[in-house]
Amino acid sequence: MPLSESEIINRFFRSCGGQRRDVTLGVGDDAALLECPPGMQLVATTDTLVAGVHFPPTVPPAAIGHRALAVNLSDLAAMGARPAWALLALTLPEADETWLAEFAAGLGRLARAHEVAVVGGDTTRGPLTITLQLLGHVPSGRALTRAGGRPGDSVFVSGTPGDAAAGLKLEQGLLAAPPDAAPYLRERFLLPTPRVALGERLRDYASACIDVSDGLLGDAGKLATASGTGLEVFFGELPVSRPLAQTLGPDPARELALTGGDDYELCFSVRPARLAELEHELPPAQWSYGRIGVLREAAGITVTRQGTVMDFSHSGYQHFS
Amino acid sequence: MPLSESEIINRFFRSCGGQRRDVTLGVGDDAALLECPPGMQLVATTDTLVAGVHFPPTVPPAAIGHRALAVNLSDLAAMGARPAWALLALTLPEADETWLAEFAAGLGRLARAHEVAVVGGDTTRGPLTITLQLLGHVPSGRALTRAGGRPGDSVFVSGTPGDAAAGLKLEQGLLAAPPDAAPYLRERFLLPTPRVALGERLRDYASACIDVSDGLLGDAGKLATASGTGLEVFFGELPVSRPLAQTLGPDPARELALTGGDDYELCFSVRPARLAELEHELPPAQWSYGRIGVLREAAGITVTRQGTVMDFSHSGYQHFS
Repeated sequence: MPLSESEIINRFFRSCGGQRRDVTLGVGDDAALLECPPGMQLVATTDTLVAGVHFPPTVPPAAIGHRALAVNLSDLAAMGARPAWALLALTLPEADETWLAEFAAGLGRLARAHEVAVVGGDTTRGPLTITLQLLGHVPSGRALTRAGGRPGDSVFVSGTPGDAAAGLKLEQGLLAAPPDAAPYLRERFLLPTPRVALGERLRDYASACIDVSDGLLGDAGKLATASGTGLEVFFGELPVSRPLAQTLGPDPARELALTGGDDYELCFSVRPARLAELEHELPPAQWSYGRIGVLREAAGITVTRQGTVMDFSHSGYQHFS
Repeated sequence: MPLSESEIINRFFRSCGGQRRDVTLGVGDDAALLECPPGMQLVATTDTLVAGVHFPPTVPPAAIGHRALAVNLSDLAAMGARPAWALLALTLPEADETWLAEFAAGLGRLARAHEVAVVGGDTTRGPLTITLQLLGHVPSGRALTRAGGRPGDSVFVSGTPGDAAAGLKLEQGLLAAPPDAAPYLRERFLLPTPRVALGERLRDYASACIDVSDGLLGDAGKLATASGTGLEVFFGELPVSRPLAQTLGPDPARELALTGGDDYELCFSVRPARLAELEHELPPAQWSYGRIGVLREAAGITVTRQGTVMDFSHSGYQHFS
């Protein structure tokens, strides 16, 4: 490596994120020193991206940097937490300065947008792997978890799931899309939008919340399981984007919305008594979310269409490809 | 993978570490919820181990698990911090249950010894890479850093550096050692002992402190640079273990003590006025540390022997192999 580890950190990462007063000592010593605000719980998560597994080799470095932070921001959003500090563990086959500058720019842009400071890290040599650890805060006792849902709660999802899965297929050359749909779908894969502001607001309304990263049906099912409930998803109400519907047709678009991955949206449940206030305070069109189903007393996950149970399996994704 | 990500986490890592009351929500949701104690600063660090780069393929999984935590514990020790919570990002080529059980046993044993809870993580498929993030606490304003040394401060190191570098050479089949020395040296590489208790006690005595992981001479030099001082190392006073001296002879053993890596010892400076109290309260023989030099006014690093500057370069390590 022409650049040493400390040169990489100093040149590309020391100042790439937000600047925060609660960082007493950031990058450069053996560990970071951070000030936890009183009355708050610390929220901690970590996610790894492996080249060739979590993104194809064609993905631009800035998008990899964005994604490494976005997937962790989405985890904190699902807890209703506000992000604060990141540590970056970057394993690189070589210290390519252009790659590093673009990666740091993509990571830094999103970090500054969410006032996240990069406070530490480690750079090592090896196959391209990025692990980011994100720390944030939530008022004590106010965190959202997967476990608070009850039968009768409505279930919502933010954004339009399925777009990112289609964008990945485009990126891989495994799908064709109309010229006006392709750039949108590709961007939904390359630059996911973590719903941090929505997550914070949902502390006042949601009974349970989960990050949608492995497919909406499976992740909504995890919320139901953790809540000790079943789940009914209304196939016809699934929100799909116009570009996705244009590309696949409405029904396959909804199938992909249920089974595709990489959405980084929030799926959350809301008590019937809170619905009116939710929709008044956080208008769905403005905050970009829609109802997809309801938690049920009986265990198990069903997808229904006009009241009829569909024979819908997790094989939808393979079917699509 | 025969085991899913959640099965791996549930079976091997959910309960492998210490149990702590300040973990409100551990492994299993989108993020962990943790209680920061009042009056303390949060201390955060991360380190990555890449198979074939940071350890040879022959290293047993339990030793890899131990090492993944030990290298991070050593960073916190260098800040004078007490460790509390770990997040584990594990990238594996395959979900080998025997490997996972042994890795978790090695990690868990060290975690429980230091009352560290494993509160989150991510398992992904790819080339074997382990990133661990460690969080801990230090009383506000009391952390040790690299930057507090002044000219005239004595410089110390814990343990007997060089042993681990020789142990690695043994592990790689690049060195032969007497039969009674080899097991000791190999263990010093495989199972490094992070000096957590010493680091905490040094808050009362040290002016600066650094984790020795990349070679004592270089890391002591970083402490001097961060402190704005020079450094003189007394070659004849370098503490070397009997097995290392037996294996290499006394002088090459001291060369390796200066340049070998993987020690995970503490190097620290102490004001002249605090020396007597340090040695009274923390007897060197009992706490296992020794003086190796002094911080100097003039910038630069010199190694001296009986008052004469040695022509000592960082090439000692190559020389040794």
